[in-house]
Amino acid sequence: KPHVDCITSRRLIRLPGLIDVHVHVREPGATHKEDYSTATAAALAGGVTLICAMPNTNPAITDKMALMTVKEAATRGARCDYGLYLGATEENYADAPALAPSVIGMKMYLNETFTTLKMDNMAAWMKHFENWPKDLPICAHAEKSNTAAVILFASLYQRSVHICHVARKEEIEVIKMAKLKGIQVTCEVAPHHLFLSENDLGSLDSKGEVRPRLATLEDQQALWNNLEFIDCFATDHAPHTLQEKTSDNPPPGFPGLETMLPLLLDAVSKGRLTVEDIVTRLHDNPRRIFNLPEQPSTWVEVDLDEEWIIPSSPAQSKCMWTPFAGRTVKGSVKRVILRGEVAYVDGNVVAAPGSGQDVRDSSTALSYLP
Amino acid sequence: KPHVDCITSRRLIRLPGLIDVHVHVREPGATHKEDYSTATAAALAGGVTLICAMPNTNPAITDKMALMTVKEAATRGARCDYGLYLGATEENYADAPALAPSVIGMKMYLNETFTTLKMDNMAAWMKHFENWPKDLPICAHAEKSNTAAVILFASLYQRSVHICHVARKEEIEVIKMAKLKGIQVTCEVAPHHLFLSENDLGSLDSKGEVRPRLATLEDQQALWNNLEFIDCFATDHAPHTLQEKTSDNPPPGFPGLETMLPLLLDAVSKGRLTVEDIVTRLHDNPRRIFNLPEQPSTWVEVDLDEEWIIPSSPAQSKCMWTPFAGRTVKGSVKRVILRGEVAYVDGNVVAAPGSGQDVRDSSTALSYLP
Ligand SMILES: [Zn+2]
Ligand SMILES: [Zn+2]
Ligand SMILES: [Zn+2]
Ligand SMILES: [Zn+2]
Ligand SMILES: [Zn+2]
Ligand SMILES: [Zn+2]
Ligand SMILES: [Zn+2]
Ligand SMILES: [Zn+2]
Repeated sequence: KPHVDCITSRRLIRLPGLIDVHVHVREPGATHKEDYSTATAAALAGGVTLICAMPNTNPAITDKMALMTVKEAATRGARCDYGLYLGATEENYADAPALAPSVIGMKMYLNETFTTLKMDNMAAWMKHFENWPKDLPICAHAEKSNTAAVILFASLYQRSVHICHVARKEEIEVIKMAKLKGIQVTCEVAPHHLFLSENDLGSLDSKGEVRPRLATLEDQQALWNNLEFIDCFATDHAPHTLQEKTSDNPPPGFPGLETMLPLLLDAVSKGRLTVEDIVTRLHDNPRRIFNLPEQPSTWVEVDLDEEWIIPSSPAQSKCMWTPFAGRTVKGSVKRVILRGEVAYVDGNVVAAPGSGQDVRDSSTALSYLP
Repeated sequence: KPHVDCITSRRLIRLPGLIDVHVHVREPGATHKEDYSTATAAALAGGVTLICAMPNTNPAITDKMALMTVKEAATRGARCDYGLYLGATEENYADAPALAPSVIGMKMYLNETFTTLKMDNMAAWMKHFENWPKDLPICAHAEKSNTAAVILFASLYQRSVHICHVARKEEIEVIKMAKLKGIQVTCEVAPHHLFLSENDLGSLDSKGEVRPRLATLEDQQALWNNLEFIDCFATDHAPHTLQEKTSDNPPPGFPGLETMLPLLLDAVSKGRLTVEDIVTRLHDNPRRIFNLPEQPSTWVEVDLDEEWIIPSSPAQSKCMWTPFAGRTVKGSVKRVILRGEVAYVDGNVVAAPGSGQDVRDSSTALSYLP
């Protein structure tokens, strides 16, 4: 059940700590874009107390060695709690299950993306679907007809699959049909696909590159129309520096951690969403789908009435830009309490690097890895 | 049941008239490559008495007008019997069902192919799956993960789908799994994917272009290993002239009608197939899947022992080349009887243009079209 309580007449309300299941931290390998300290600072500023970190780092998180490397970085740097994804490759299907207890899910890249992790051959999908524990998610970057293809795999292997960043009408409609037939599929939608469309590409200029691409208004409307079939909101926070984004060869990806909750609260103020819709998709469902622990004594205080303008460079991320710059939004994050301690208050991240915890760690879990 | 009877001590045997469910006739629009007269002559020379003609002609067969055009051409030119496909577009889903009684199935192009018929958006797939009569096949050019995607559609819409020219291990394996789960999927394999591989690309040079591409030996072996899950053999006879195939920009496609049965009989002589395997996949299953009538008093006489060398230019097709040139094969077509008349004997096509019949025509069927 959602935990929304009016605590003052100013419409300050308390939300549970939010969970963002799709974050690119960029550490190791590209810490000029972001690192555990800055990504988790941005998370806290956005009311997110638990991030799930994607494996397409450098090195990619596809084996025990890389997993230990990123765990060390996260242990040192994280200011909020975190879970890690293991990346699927065409080779690591036999070794992956032993690493499962240390991660929150497996990520499979099925489409052309800017990573080394693309799996073009369904033979490799099969091996992962066969081997990966059924109680942990397989999460797929699966655009267009690959959405349908990977859903067939969920059906054939009688296990669940989670579709990342659904962006198009055809994708949400096939997910809806599959859900109605009882196939175990869940999905997430990113705020930029809810609040931006290809119509914004002109003003975003070279910064508009993102995967999946910004879609049509019809696609965007289909996401809003099918909200009941969208299990999670997730940022797909994918920071690149402003310099990179304005270069001749801009890499795809938007930051999102500092702006997601304000944008969703603004939608609440406009009657497009309820606060319960947010809590369901950023707390209850992520916990259930990824089998995540409750964070004790953890909550977020938001002001539903505060209006503010999203600045061109939100304060915490290293990337120094946002595709939502200049938007007036109603709704702001005032304070975040993480495990009984103030972690964020009025623009200031208080939690220190290293105070975040790995949701899959008992302190010695890694030493048990094979 | 197969109809194989030894009729002489020379191992001349009689097969039922064979059905090739995947033929590109090239008429209308590219009759310098092939036309109804030459395509059906090639069919008869290869023991095929019924061809199913693909709709990616010029104009493409996607509406009543184009269907009437191609029916006129076929009525004039065909020397063996035929059925026609309707091509699916993103627009014709509402009008297609009324044309269904005049065709043998719907063809959907889901991958990049050299046609105007590519359907990139699953929203259009949905509409066709919803509208097309369940007792007529939807046939899909669906390579790699699109094989899985379209099989999901068969499952969601509780109807059958037929996968054209399966060429890869990953494709036949997902089809096998879906069949074992009871999903209504059938498939065909082309002789060039059984008897050629990417290892032949060197000697084929620019003529080796075909879609799906010639695959690896591992892919080829997977087809042979999963013969029990292959419902049909079909040529995907796609003639282009030798001049076109040796140009700087060679179009993809191989002719196949004159060589398919000899290649399969040769495989029988080598113990890789039985004659029953051939009859099941070129007569019984095509009849069942496409709901085709029995051709009365129709059979093919083949010599299982005759060895011959496939010439560089088989006699009947206009295209004047074959990817199998120079191969020694054991097994040849001696005589073809179509509805009680000799249609082919010892290298000579006897059936006249116009003697072939549309398997979906009562003489007035077209006039009932809306
Ligand atoms: Zn609650
Ligand atoms: Zn992605
Ligand atoms: Zn991502
Ligand atoms: Zn909770
Ligand atoms: Zn028989
Ligand atoms: Zn094709
Ligand atoms: Zn074809
Ligand atoms: Zn028969």
